Amino acid sequence: MSHIVALCGGVGGAKLAFGLAQVLPPQDLTVIVNTGDDFEHLGLHISPDIDTVLYTLAGLADRTRGWGVADESWNFMAALGRLGGETWFNLGDCDLATHVERTRRLHSGETLSQVTAALARALGIGPAIVPMSDDAVRTVVSTTTGEMPFQRYFVAEQCKPVVTALQFAGADAAHLAPTAAAALARSDLGAVIICPSNPWLSIDPILAVPGIAAALAAGSAPVIAVSPLVGGRAIKGPTAKLMTELGLIPGVAAIARHYAGVIDRLVIDGADAADAAALPCPALVTPTVMAGDAERIALARAILKWVL
Amino acid sequence: MSHIVALCGGVGGAKLAFGLAQVLPPQDLTVIVNTGDDFEHLGLHISPDIDTVLYTLAGLADRTRGWGVADESWNFMAALGRLGGETWFNLGDCDLATHVERTRRLHSGETLSQVTAALARALGIGPAIVPMSDDAVRTVVSTTTGEMPFQRYFVAEQCKPVVTALQFAGADAAHLAPTAAAALARSDLGAVIICPSNPWLSIDPILAVPGIAAALAAGSAPVIAVSPLVGGRAIKGPTAKLMTELGLIPGVAAIARHYAGVIDRLVIDGADAADAAALPCPALVTPTVMAGDAERIALARAILKWVL
Repeated sequence: MSHIVALCGGVGGAKLAFGLAQVLPPQDLTVIVNTGDDFEHLGLHISPDIDTVLYTLAGLADRTRGWGVADESWNFMAALGRLGGETWFNLGDCDLATHVERTRRLHSGETLSQVTAALARALGIGPAIVPMSDDAVRTVVSTTTGEMPFQRYFVAEQCKPVVTALQFAGADAAHLAPTAAAALARSDLGAVIICPSNPWLSIDPILAVPGIAAALAAGSAPVIAVSPLVGGRAIKGPTAKLMTELGLIPGVAAIARHYAGVIDRLVIDGADAADAAALPCPALVTPTVMAGDAERIALARAILKWVL
Repeated sequence: MSHIVALCGGVGGAKLAFGLAQVLPPQDLTVIVNTGDDFEHLGLHISPDIDTVLYTLAGLADRTRGWGVADESWNFMAALGRLGGETWFNLGDCDLATHVERTRRLHSGETLSQVTAALARALGIGPAIVPMSDDAVRTVVSTTTGEMPFQRYFVAEQCKPVVTALQFAGADAAHLAPTAAAALARSDLGAVIICPSNPWLSIDPILAVPGIAAALAAGSAPVIAVSPLVGGRAIKGPTAKLMTELGLIPGVAAIARHYAGVIDRLVIDGADAADAAALPCPALVTPTVMAGDAERIALARAILKWVL
């Protein structure tokens, strides 16, 4: 069996990572996760995409809200509000344990990779879950109303500002996490799958870490992206709105152009089958909307069957 | 009206502080609280006695458990346990907000006095709640099985080790909190009331802060202690056990001897009326068991009537 590496952001990406985790032996999958959304809040180190991947693969994720854990309670948040604390970023009582434990471990000298591995182990997750880097890379959103950190754009401003550009502060000096670099350098690497996360907000930060683009280009393993757009619309999140603001027509053609030079193939939904022929790379047309576990697993199987 | 200063530890002391807060105008009461029990845990600054006083005066305290807030939930703790985190010290979901907000404010440069005042204000508490010091003073318990920090003795070891001595690390270099010093220096100071907290564990750390003993001795206001023992037994906590380990017969006579040179008068329960005549200072015999709000208020009234 060959090794599979998945590049992953939050919700949509985590769903495919879950599917891959169901069909691959644990030792054959490494999930490299975006940390551009990470931030310090209330003295805690919060890694939203890592948490979404951990909760999703552990079967703990809330399936309707799209973030955090299921059956969450919010008593901490209510009490913090009574004390006049900052409540613009919602932290559930269970979720909070992840941030407190992560922060404690980071302060004790562990790297984000080590902390993430420990959390994954505690949650019974088999595949390797790896931050893209142990160094701080922070997504900064330039908008028509000014520059803002990612979480202000995404949570506080609910993606309403019009985006003009994106920067990944710290990326130039960041190093690919050791486990991520090792996975990409494996001689038995069978494929790199770019999960259906937002290419600009969730995947580009990963690709901005020096060395990863070269590693993808150098390897013989095919790089396959899964389009996060279906029929020109995102399942969740601001992908289509963002593309329009950047002057792009939301659709699989623009996704393929964005990933030009990085990917060898693209996976698109049946809703976009008519666009397949005009794409600059081979495309697999298959259902990509992952409403439940069955669809997640089916998509993972379809991609692996196509690639390996 | 004259100003009243109360010296206070956790549960028992907080009950009398509550009574005093009900019968005195807010501007006429300053509660100086022990911080020898404070500790860093999970990266958070926890001030158990300050929290007990805040929760008690805000009407939020749990009345049966003896610590934390009523109607508390424990989902953070359960999640932390699943992650393999440290769970020996229980932190409720609501309680946690206090520690996170305190820690955030301390890291932003506020003093513990400023943080405590802000929390008290947010909780609608009128009287001034003041830590004994803004500097770190940490109670260290010497036992027959070695030295240990207070919380290890009190929570992890449940007061089981046999105590041989107590130290207040950092006390020599600590400064009395400015608001505490100012309250004790007021020309209209009417009385200093040492609440029925554990004299060795909760009041001695306060008295160990340089300047406070001199301030008590220098002022003309009487210093009145309320015995935490009733009929030789503590209402709650390890006072009697600790006294025996230190070679003392648990009773109001030993309490009076312990506070010799500090107090002018002692308040004792009717159960100890027979010991009143032999005490080295005047005693008020009055019910000191505070089962409910009525008893808290009655004790506060009785003390104030006796003193002012």
